[in-house]
Amino acid sequence: MSYDGTDFSGWARQPQRRTVCGVLEDVLAQVLRGPLRRLTVAGRTDAGVHATGQVSHVDLPVDTDAPALPYRLNRALPADVRILRARRVPPEFDARFAALRRHYTYRVSDAPVEPLRRNHVVAWPRPLDLARLNLAAANLLGTHDFVAFCKKREGATTIRELQRLEWHKADDVFVAQVSADAFCHSMVRSLVGALLAVGEGRKPADWPVSLLAAESRSSDVTVAPAHGLVLTGVDYPPDEQLAARAQQTRNVRTL
Amino acid sequence: MSYDGTDFSGWARQPQRRTVCGVLEDVLAQVLRGPLRRLTVAGRTDAGVHATGQVSHVDLPVDTDAPALPYRLNRALPADVRILRARRVPPEFDARFAALRRHYTYRVSDAPVEPLRRNHVVAWPRPLDLARLNLAAANLLGTHDFVAFCKKREGATTIRELQRLEWHKADDVFVAQVSADAFCHSMVRSLVGALLAVGEGRKPADWPVSLLAAESRSSDVTVAPAHGLVLTGVDYPPDEQLAARAQQTRNVRTL
Repeated sequence: MSYDGTDFSGWARQPQRRTVCGVLEDVLAQVLRGPLRRLTVAGRTDAGVHATGQVSHVDLPVDTDAPALPYRLNRALPADVRILRARRVPPEFDARFAALRRHYTYRVSDAPVEPLRRNHVVAWPRPLDLARLNLAAANLLGTHDFVAFCKKREGATTIRELQRLEWHKADDVFVAQVSADAFCHSMVRSLVGALLAVGEGRKPADWPVSLLAAESRSSDVTVAPAHGLVLTGVDYPPDEQLAARAQQTRNVRTL
Repeated sequence: MSYDGTDFSGWARQPQRRTVCGVLEDVLAQVLRGPLRRLTVAGRTDAGVHATGQVSHVDLPVDTDAPALPYRLNRALPADVRILRARRVPPEFDARFAALRRHYTYRVSDAPVEPLRRNHVVAWPRPLDLARLNLAAANLLGTHDFVAFCKKREGATTIRELQRLEWHKADDVFVAQVSADAFCHSMVRSLVGALLAVGEGRKPADWPVSLLAAESRSSDVTVAPAHGLVLTGVDYPPDEQLAARAQQTRNVRTL
């Protein structure tokens, strides 16, 4: 699914707030004329964060025509959220725990931001240097304890494998492509915040990697604004490997 | 300059309406602490139409630092309009009459429209065929009387040279690229409306070209929705040819 996060208080359902999950679950119950059914999502995006490739699963009556669901739901959904595709999955599929990798982009520009793109490109008030951004980014790849870049949650590991973190320039916009097996809370925006400090010349290129040695969240790291971030995709194993994957993540969860 | 036309009642200043020209002229007077100075624009876009490459000229005090103007104006402008560049031009320059070509794009999708792009991609309710769109488009190229596709204005010619009209598909979006020496009122959206009738199979591919024989606006042609249209650029002669160009258009205007 795809959404413009601007007018949502993030993914997770909250009382009295307009959230992506809340809107989707309500419309699903209305369209299927059934009880409220809970969605499980690959990436619980924060307020203001967008998605073009978010994935979630939900248990529905066995006779539901899955491929027809996007059309039925989109007619009832507000224009800032769209279901792109739906399919029936094996019972072992879990949108969160079966995910192998999450992919994000982050967009920022030190030139005037095109008004048509202002919802998802951050205007940066100082000049940025592409080579410095990439120099600092390359050092962070690999498996590390990213606790310095995480808003810690009880019990969640902060050891992640950062598989891709690179910047390119498209027109006047700096675009970061970021992939990992999973991200802890606020990790992409914290990494980007640290890199932007290097890109604008305020910190040396080896500063972000030096934070990996920290044992807790670094107060020096500014979390970059939410609206530059887009969840672009989630990778899953082929259906025939889902059962093995479910066994694997169950073992990890009980460790 | 660039703007998101969604919340503007078009370019032209109107009393009691929020228009691009009105907002720009007001901010210019405020920033330069001077009288209201009138902007002359290359393309007077309708309500809801966007621009990424609009051009206008204005007469300013001779000591104005033109290259610094975008920064000063953008700080005072709302986020849905941005000045990209400014420069001092020869006295013969006229944003409207010196223009050699205008370039537009039109975006429409028969798949769910990405929420982040919903302000400038039209959701089309029926399947479209790229080959049919292009077949019908190719017939329209060249110099014709486009009166069938024009909301006629007193005294304005409807003979135009359509230099480019072609469609491609980018992701799930059909994109038309349209260029001409100039366009009469509603011409791009009328051309696109006629082509979409072919693209969805409702009219034969030679129907749009058959309308060129008409002597007045065709009531069969549906004007496509405004929000798919973007003015992307305007071509001008080199500075040293502006005087000759001014002489040329002055002759045409007095014919």
